[in-house]
Amino acid sequence: MAASASNLTVGDLGEQGVLALLQGFCPAHIIGDDAALLTPNPGHQLVITTDVLVEGVHFSDRTTSARDVGWRSAAVNLSDLAAMGASPLGLTVGLGLPPGLSQHWLQEVYMGLSDCLQTYGGVIWGGDVVRSPTITVSITALGEVPDQGAILRHRAQPGHVLLATGWHGASRAGLELLLHPTWGGDLNPSDRAALLQAHQRPVPRFDVLQALRQCICPGTIAGMDSSDGLADAVVQLCRASQVGAILAQDQIPIHPALFRTRSLSPLQAQDWALYGGEDFELVLSLPPQAAAQLLPQLESGAAIIGQITPDLEVYLQGSGAPQRLSLESGFQHWSSPPLM
Amino acid sequence: MAASASNLTVGDLGEQGVLALLQGFCPAHIIGDDAALLTPNPGHQLVITTDVLVEGVHFSDRTTSARDVGWRSAAVNLSDLAAMGASPLGLTVGLGLPPGLSQHWLQEVYMGLSDCLQTYGGVIWGGDVVRSPTITVSITALGEVPDQGAILRHRAQPGHVLLATGWHGASRAGLELLLHPTWGGDLNPSDRAALLQAHQRPVPRFDVLQALRQCICPGTIAGMDSSDGLADAVVQLCRASQVGAILAQDQIPIHPALFRTRSLSPLQAQDWALYGGEDFELVLSLPPQAAAQLLPQLESGAAIIGQITPDLEVYLQGSGAPQRLSLESGFQHWSSPPLM
Repeated sequence: MAASASNLTVGDLGEQGVLALLQGFCPAHIIGDDAALLTPNPGHQLVITTDVLVEGVHFSDRTTSARDVGWRSAAVNLSDLAAMGASPLGLTVGLGLPPGLSQHWLQEVYMGLSDCLQTYGGVIWGGDVVRSPTITVSITALGEVPDQGAILRHRAQPGHVLLATGWHGASRAGLELLLHPTWGGDLNPSDRAALLQAHQRPVPRFDVLQALRQCICPGTIAGMDSSDGLADAVVQLCRASQVGAILAQDQIPIHPALFRTRSLSPLQAQDWALYGGEDFELVLSLPPQAAAQLLPQLESGAAIIGQITPDLEVYLQGSGAPQRLSLESGFQHWSSPPLM
Repeated sequence: MAASASNLTVGDLGEQGVLALLQGFCPAHIIGDDAALLTPNPGHQLVITTDVLVEGVHFSDRTTSARDVGWRSAAVNLSDLAAMGASPLGLTVGLGLPPGLSQHWLQEVYMGLSDCLQTYGGVIWGGDVVRSPTITVSITALGEVPDQGAILRHRAQPGHVLLATGWHGASRAGLELLLHPTWGGDLNPSDRAALLQAHQRPVPRFDVLQALRQCICPGTIAGMDSSDGLADAVVQLCRASQVGAILAQDQIPIHPALFRTRSLSPLQAQDWALYGGEDFELVLSLPPQAAAQLLPQLESGAAIIGQITPDLEVYLQGSGAPQRLSLESGFQHWSSPPLM
């Protein structure tokens, strides 16, 4: 029995039908070979990164529309490129799909991928589509960075300050809004929208790279993104550079909406900003004068949050005794509870 | 309760523990950033390909050891690079793993990946590890090919002959041996070993590229690999080039072991050679004199199997009326029954 186009499944389409559908999202000249061919620009290095998203772990129908799954899948990879100082060139998509999945859902995922690439650059080169009981989206993105221009983790040094490029805790709060509809009932519509947007449509910070190019010597910068939490980013940067850091508690850029609901205490708000994860901001270690030059060019939320020290520990300094931060308290993809 | 090292699960190790384990398989200088950095060689283009393997669809404990899962995952991607004329540079690994999976299994997968890369070249650049109910291995491999040296599908032309670089049907027979222990009980041990090897340890044909470089003008070659079946490769080549082909039935390189068991009729043997899939040979379209030059340099099994014609159909020519081949009868990842 023929199904109508609107409720076709990927199983109805078959492998060739699915491939034909997805090829519509790729540039015509790269279709049809065993692999895609690309010509690197002279004077550049390549940056390659892979992120896997799994239904029930990283997204679910309750929290993320298909189009947002596509956007997120691209954005988390592009954020890794931005964290290395690279511009996006393109990506491949490895898909595991249950045959009963609707064609519409798949098409929406590719619309979301395309939205993200059209906004920040890069094309879809192709990939692979296979049958799987679990919806899986595995993206590998490639970017380019001028020779010697890469931002690496191991270059943080005593005398540097730490700069976070934007608000933290918003993505975690957005997830809470989606999972628990009664949570944050006292938030105004624009706060709600901002928190949901932070969770569903994260923004890779390529604009920071543009600002950086205009003001400072890149060789002296270390950095990474805060996808696994702000505290995690600082600890990882310090570990890679064999240094420590002191963070100023009152400088942590906690998203202001987190203080405008009675559903959350100020201490919980700080916790979500430090450990919530998935804010996809950049955390940079750079000389104070460079940070002072960069900061006014960034949007609200960007802040100098602390400084690098020669010892190997990371402390949060508030009004009381300094509190040591460690990775164990950070956002753990591995042990975090499933979303559904 | 502490588990002994030998029966630890990936859940016991946690995300950091798993990453530490896997980083042991990567070159030390590329560890620790959001993405890996590589410097392309001048005068080369890059080739990028992605293949996803899913437990229960592409492998199972019944058919494939963990070490062979690793080998296969790398080899299927490397075969795509070989099919484009490219040498391997490296790959990223996106893993979805159930927390109850044994650490030993994961380690063995990486041993298999490393075996394959040590044999053919390339390194592991890193990737991503996430929790998933379904074991999923998504590999993206990058290779390089001298400018203008890529083998593309759309260059087959009337006057060319079709050359298959080795035996077909062996991988399908190897799978049958694994799934049905009584099948092929009359095969001798060396035939059995050859068929199992074909299924479990497929060989990307980089040796063919070396032979090609020594004898012919690369611009005139079209080709792809036969991962989805020999018939599929010929139909895809012809479709991409808008030509047709006539295959000589008596030149199809059916693995000789398939004729040495009463479990299989000669017609079934031909079917497995044409449609069985996963033999990972190359199917090349090239001028007759170039094929004649290449053939003696290849191992047994390589054969000139037919010729390109100006019409758009692919026929198999035996003693009777020619039989039209189409994709619909080919190996279908999508609709093939699960292995378990």
